[in-house]
Amino acid sequence: MLHLVIAEAELELVPKAILDHPAIVNHARRRGKRPDEILLDGTYHHAAIKKLPDGERRGRPDIVHVCLLNALESIANKEGLLRVYVHTRNDEVIYIKPETRIPRNYNRFVGLMESLFKNRAVPRDLELLRIEEKSLEELVEELNPDGVFVMHENGEPAKPSEFGKTLSELREPTVIVGGFPHGDFRAEPPGKKISLYNAPLMAWTVVNEVIISFEHWIL
Amino acid sequence: MLHLVIAEAELELVPKAILDHPAIVNHARRRGKRPDEILLDGTYHHAAIKKLPDGERRGRPDIVHVCLLNALESIANKEGLLRVYVHTRNDEVIYIKPETRIPRNYNRFVGLMESLFKNRAVPRDLELLRIEEKSLEELVEELNPDGVFVMHENGEPAKPSEFGKTLSELREPTVIVGGFPHGDFRAEPPGKKISLYNAPLMAWTVVNEVIISFEHWIL
Repeated sequence: MLHLVIAEAELELVPKAILDHPAIVNHARRRGKRPDEILLDGTYHHAAIKKLPDGERRGRPDIVHVCLLNALESIANKEGLLRVYVHTRNDEVIYIKPETRIPRNYNRFVGLMESLFKNRAVPRDLELLRIEEKSLEELVEELNPDGVFVMHENGEPAKPSEFGKTLSELREPTVIVGGFPHGDFRAEPPGKKISLYNAPLMAWTVVNEVIISFEHWIL
Repeated sequence: MLHLVIAEAELELVPKAILDHPAIVNHARRRGKRPDEILLDGTYHHAAIKKLPDGERRGRPDIVHVCLLNALESIANKEGLLRVYVHTRNDEVIYIKPETRIPRNYNRFVGLMESLFKNRAVPRDLELLRIEEKSLEELVEELNPDGVFVMHENGEPAKPSEFGKTLSELREPTVIVGGFPHGDFRAEPPGKKISLYNAPLMAWTVVNEVIISFEHWIL
């Protein structure tokens, strides 16, 4: 079973410090929600996000959305060989049941995440997604992996295919992919750093390379 | 060079027959556009789309969006080994320069496509994307491939890795992936049918499998 962690994902509700900013207030009103109920989104809240620490990389639910669409619709997931987790910048972990059908439409995905932050599980009966306060270290410890890898620009170079072979030889390999647009992890993640390419890649590209390279040795 | 065609994609402006439907008129007004300027979108126009032929599968710009994000951010594309085309249900072909950075935000992508349908090229100076009236057959003929493959549920079974090897041994292989949510191609596409899995896959999953399996034999 491959455990895939989207780590330090830029997924959060609007922080208190900018709840009164006109960019937030107006966007919330247009959506018929309260400012403290909506996801921070760089596309719409640029003027407000600039005022936050790490402002240039925050508010990127789109990265989580595309990573999840790819991971959950992968052959590996259909074969029951994959588990996917989202760890956020605020040390929360979203557990996702493999049978979950993530909304294809971005705006509906945003609505789902807002409901998840509010209710801690969606839908309430099935709990396909649930969120808990948890650090990346605690999550990795809980997964009890026999190998932990961090996908990183400055990691040990490995061809995707070779890396897939390494994963396939483990019982419970865990792979950590940064869920942010650029830059480095804010906290050093546990695990061996691996680089699949000699230039930065988008998070969803790394997700695809890892899952499909793993599949090739398993299926 | 691998040529990837997203074919019969469900990407179109709102058809004349439903321009007056309240679901369309209201959505256009909310977006500050004319009804004939907006993309058909199943998420918002469900009540209107039902009245169209093939209504249950139309209005899916999201599928094109995710396929393009994956293809254009792939290692194969960064290495100059990939060309991507979108063929629509109305027999138009969108040519995309490999260096194009597709908007990450879905709503911005929709705006870009609307601008493309209106102006036939965006941005006007660089023409990173341009659209022409053209059938799938005409496009494939123009690409002058030495192998054409149609990804299809009922095709000849092939492991993704084996199929990647086949592609890697050709000079200009062309792979056709249906850009619709379910069902079959409306017109029989040219090429040898290949099935990568024993159950239906989302279009973006097939795109990922094809590109990454190809990369493994090339890089």
